[in-house]
Amino acid sequence: LNTRSKQSRTDAKRTEILDSAAGALRRLGVRGAGMRQIAEAAGLSAGNLYYYFRNKDELVYYCQIVTLDRLLAVARQARRHSTSTILQLGELIEGHLRVTLGEHASGPLHLDFGDLPAPLLKKVLQKRDRYEREVRAILVEGQRAHELRTGDAKLDAFVLLGALNWATRWFQPGRGYDVAQVAAHHRERLLEGLIFHRSRS
Amino acid sequence: LNTRSKQSRTDAKRTEILDSAAGALRRLGVRGAGMRQIAEAAGLSAGNLYYYFRNKDELVYYCQIVTLDRLLAVARQARRHSTSTILQLGELIEGHLRVTLGEHASGPLHLDFGDLPAPLLKKVLQKRDRYEREVRAILVEGQRAHELRTGDAKLDAFVLLGALNWATRWFQPGRGYDVAQVAAHHRERLLEGLIFHRSRS
Repeated sequence: LNTRSKQSRTDAKRTEILDSAAGALRRLGVRGAGMRQIAEAAGLSAGNLYYYFRNKDELVYYCQIVTLDRLLAVARQARRHSTSTILQLGELIEGHLRVTLGEHASGPLHLDFGDLPAPLLKKVLQKRDRYEREVRAILVEGQRAHELRTGDAKLDAFVLLGALNWATRWFQPGRGYDVAQVAAHHRERLLEGLIFHRSRS
Repeated sequence: LNTRSKQSRTDAKRTEILDSAAGALRRLGVRGAGMRQIAEAAGLSAGNLYYYFRNKDELVYYCQIVTLDRLLAVARQARRHSTSTILQLGELIEGHLRVTLGEHASGPLHLDFGDLPAPLLKKVLQKRDRYEREVRAILVEGQRAHELRTGDAKLDAFVLLGALNWATRWFQPGRGYDVAQVAAHHRERLLEGLIFHRSRS
């Protein structure tokens, strides 16, 4: 029990460090940011940073895990929240963008994990697959309930996640849009599509 | 004139080499593929490959340029083809996926140009911006014609391009889907949205 609570304190500290370093990671990019710069951004000595992350790979890995855990929480919360899959999807879209674009988000880093060593990459992909399954589950339920258009739920999820994840590539905090605007727009467009239907308005 | 036709012959040969090497680039990744492996895939000696591309950066750069030129041709063709912006968009969606997922496409490479030296990166970004302007022009026209839903055309373009470009990350030729299936699905979903509207069917 003691070991576990020490572990969870260490994890909490790791999350705190990554949240503080998010701005620097976003600005410098994953490959560009050195451990020294990351330590500085988080207000730590380099030695102290190495206590929590043995190397850059481990730091990138934890970044992915923290983000994916937050996305999983968003998906589960959305599914509990409402019986309408349309509302669930809307909540998921907004939550996904808040997690990946918000002030603690490390931006494009969310997608840039291809360079991780195989064992770490495998764990990231497993968690990502779990999130994708949650998303697909909402889509499948929505189709069954005739709330969503029938089709290949896997391809539907790719359209949804592609549009959402793309935002981490173009979004720049404080320039042009805020997260709420992007979330409201993307929610409407993904649910309603691009075509204007006279009969519905 | 003579110089220009020599230049265009060189460019044609470059395109031919990149098309032949597409499979290897897709399999090995941009960073993973060495010039030697690329030469092999294209049926050239390494020396001959270096005649056409001074280094890997130049090769990656040409890959981007060839793809973006093809996408620009798709957009222009779509705009000439029809007076309905809905049909134009549909054609653009299918054409974009054919270009980026087709047998000559180098897959995720399409998005992976962040490491290019600044002068090459700048040219790629200029051409990419030109393509995005073509896409936005269709969206703006469609809104004016009341064929598309009113909204921020820049954000609309991001939803569209995000979903389309995402496919280069997950699509694997010969496994699960063919390009035509993905194109038909994405065309319908992006235009019509996820929600099923009883009144319209």
